Amino acid sequence: MALVVQKYGGSSVADASCIKRVAQRIVATKKAGNDVTVIVSAMGDTTDELLDLAEQVSPLPPGRELDMLLTSGERISMALLAMAIANLGYEARSFTGSQAGVITNSTHGKARIIDVTPSRIREALDRGHIAIVAGFQGVSQDTKDITTLGRGGSDTTAVALAAALDADVCEIYTDVDGIFTADPRIVPTARKIPKVSYDEMMEMAACGAKILHLRCVEYARRFALPIHVRSSFSTREGTWVVSDPYTEGTEMEQPIISGVAHDRSEAKITVVGVPDKVGEAAAIFKTLAGAEINIDMIVQNVSAAATGRTDISFTLPTADSSTALTALKRMQGEIAFESLLFDDQIGKVSLIGAGMRSHPGVTATFFAALADAGVNIEMISTSEIRISVIVDQDDVDVAVAAAHRAFELDADQVEAVVYGGSGR
Amino acid sequence: MALVVQKYGGSSVADASCIKRVAQRIVATKKAGNDVTVIVSAMGDTTDELLDLAEQVSPLPPGRELDMLLTSGERISMALLAMAIANLGYEARSFTGSQAGVITNSTHGKARIIDVTPSRIREALDRGHIAIVAGFQGVSQDTKDITTLGRGGSDTTAVALAAALDADVCEIYTDVDGIFTADPRIVPTARKIPKVSYDEMMEMAACGAKILHLRCVEYARRFALPIHVRSSFSTREGTWVVSDPYTEGTEMEQPIISGVAHDRSEAKITVVGVPDKVGEAAAIFKTLAGAEINIDMIVQNVSAAATGRTDISFTLPTADSSTALTALKRMQGEIAFESLLFDDQIGKVSLIGAGMRSHPGVTATFFAALADAGVNIEMISTSEIRISVIVDQDDVDVAVAAAHRAFELDADQVEAVVYGGSGR
Repeated sequence: MALVVQKYGGSSVADASCIKRVAQRIVATKKAGNDVTVIVSAMGDTTDELLDLAEQVSPLPPGRELDMLLTSGERISMALLAMAIANLGYEARSFTGSQAGVITNSTHGKARIIDVTPSRIREALDRGHIAIVAGFQGVSQDTKDITTLGRGGSDTTAVALAAALDADVCEIYTDVDGIFTADPRIVPTARKIPKVSYDEMMEMAACGAKILHLRCVEYARRFALPIHVRSSFSTREGTWVVSDPYTEGTEMEQPIISGVAHDRSEAKITVVGVPDKVGEAAAIFKTLAGAEINIDMIVQNVSAAATGRTDISFTLPTADSSTALTALKRMQGEIAFESLLFDDQIGKVSLIGAGMRSHPGVTATFFAALADAGVNIEMISTSEIRISVIVDQDDVDVAVAAAHRAFELDADQVEAVVYGGSGR
Repeated sequence: MALVVQKYGGSSVADASCIKRVAQRIVATKKAGNDVTVIVSAMGDTTDELLDLAEQVSPLPPGRELDMLLTSGERISMALLAMAIANLGYEARSFTGSQAGVITNSTHGKARIIDVTPSRIREALDRGHIAIVAGFQGVSQDTKDITTLGRGGSDTTAVALAAALDADVCEIYTDVDGIFTADPRIVPTARKIPKVSYDEMMEMAACGAKILHLRCVEYARRFALPIHVRSSFSTREGTWVVSDPYTEGTEMEQPIISGVAHDRSEAKITVVGVPDKVGEAAAIFKTLAGAEINIDMIVQNVSAAATGRTDISFTLPTADSSTALTALKRMQGEIAFESLLFDDQIGKVSLIGAGMRSHPGVTATFFAALADAGVNIEMISTSEIRISVIVDQDDVDVAVAAAHRAFELDADQVEAVVYGGSGR
């Protein structure tokens, strides 16, 4: 008997009939002889509606109270799901994050999980019950206040709880069939990836693939917990995220590139005319860190000997732009740079693949493909298993398609893809 | 510095602007130098909407899960209220029933409070915070599951928490100015009662006065906690419910009758031709108790010597009628009664007043007033401070007005009464 942890997102439990359908799938897993623990998000637009209410009451609600408010969303969906399962003749028990032992720090709105002590879940499973757990929420170790985990929170709950329960698999249900070699809306010939490593998945998540959140994959890697990303609208196998996808079976050769990711949510800031002295770059990035801004790519040009000055460019989430620009402007006296340039019409295109380690020439092929497609490269950043370039936002689609073709990722036929929530 | 516990019902926090108004009243109480703990119900129709959702998912949802679902309602209202208070520059902290230490038994849907251990509330008050507590909910001692207290639950939470905190007063905010000598919709000359005893209030609650629930008054009496029932739409004094309203000041003489209550929610069942033997009545009421039906009034006619049979009539909540009739029908073989009669077109009119103890002749005056008004009495039941009669439902208004007049309860002028939620 296996222990299966399943996670259903908001679109999978959007209304009463969705909830009943999910209940049937859960019961089918139980009937197949498994112990089942389910993590569930708030129904459809509930969280947005609650945020709306908060906004009507206060322009800047305290984090503690906002978390208290938002966590009512999962309370509703998990209770309804437990009822729907009971209706099918199986015993289900719903548990809040606190009841499930999801212990966090006390950073409201984006708390981090410190520990998971799921004694009540174990007890429920031992009695043969199906445990339903609220995603996205926990209880702070110090203050015993209710917290929320921030973006990707329910996936993280699922993986953390699966690890604590020593589950055999954590199934993440979504509205697509799995992870694809590229966004099928841009590349209709994109293929579903059967298996991918944690490292590759983390790079994909960091580079704009939205299906799994970086934190949840990090967590799974730490505990070597297999994740199975699959559609709640079909019973097909999805994508397995595991430690090493290519040692287990010999059925396939490792591809050089696993996928092409893209991200349009970043902007670029260039600090022009920075004095080329020790410590100036440090001062810039200390200023940005102080404003709690996550920097992605950084490029420093070679200093022009004549001026003794250099330009430093970096990318960051567009949403953080004005905070970053304000913080830098305030430091202009100390850092003595000349000016700031800002560009939010950029896009990032990334090649990801553990296979590129053993294949020299990947960069050359990639850049040649972009050049042939007429795409200009503005910035470059690489890791051992990733190459990212910043291009004009209008060139993103062309660049993704060109890279996908150049590394022979195109499927022979277009797969029947359910994307973006159709089929609901 | 006094400790004031305030309770606001669903209509007082129906939307964002209501919540802001309530926040101002709470802050005013705090500004006046009091410690303040607030108990809040779910917003307006939230509970009904959640029940609707449950019904869509399951015809008979498990009690544990229904409680989990319904308690999300107060979670929303209390978090929003805390935000609104923070907006006014005061620190507020919201607490679930569980966090507030409301310990109950595990009867889901109508749990009883076993203990209140409000250490987190005390701590919040000690820090100068305003504590906001979810009404209607608690946590079961045995299973640590979330429970709800059933009808009148938020009032009971307020009184229980006020008692545990040794509060100076528990203010119950409603949409009328207090307790009236009769329902002002029936008797426009009804007066607001300035003070009333716990015993009288309990009789009123049991006889159909809907403003305070019986359980909450029982609880307040046990701890001699003063309740102040008042309008959330004005700052006027409402009605004080206290141990002995007439010993404290000498400003008023005790009235014979405090008020006239009525109730249209009961039905009457008559068990015809019960063998006049020891144990037959016991068998009937044991049957009803087994079906968990609360009986109100009981009348047994004198047995007709010729037949050796008697009729037993009783009243019960109309909603329980079919359960009761089915249970009795099933016992007809054993009890050997002849037939069952059912009448839901009845109403109960009750005179309540501690003063009637020392005034003989109250019954005579009451019955004479009803006779003069042409009202026929079907059943009679009395306690030391109450006389109730069952009449035809169409006669209820006339009977209430006649009794009100006969005991000189009419005000000289019609008070400006806000009733039934107008003014919102």
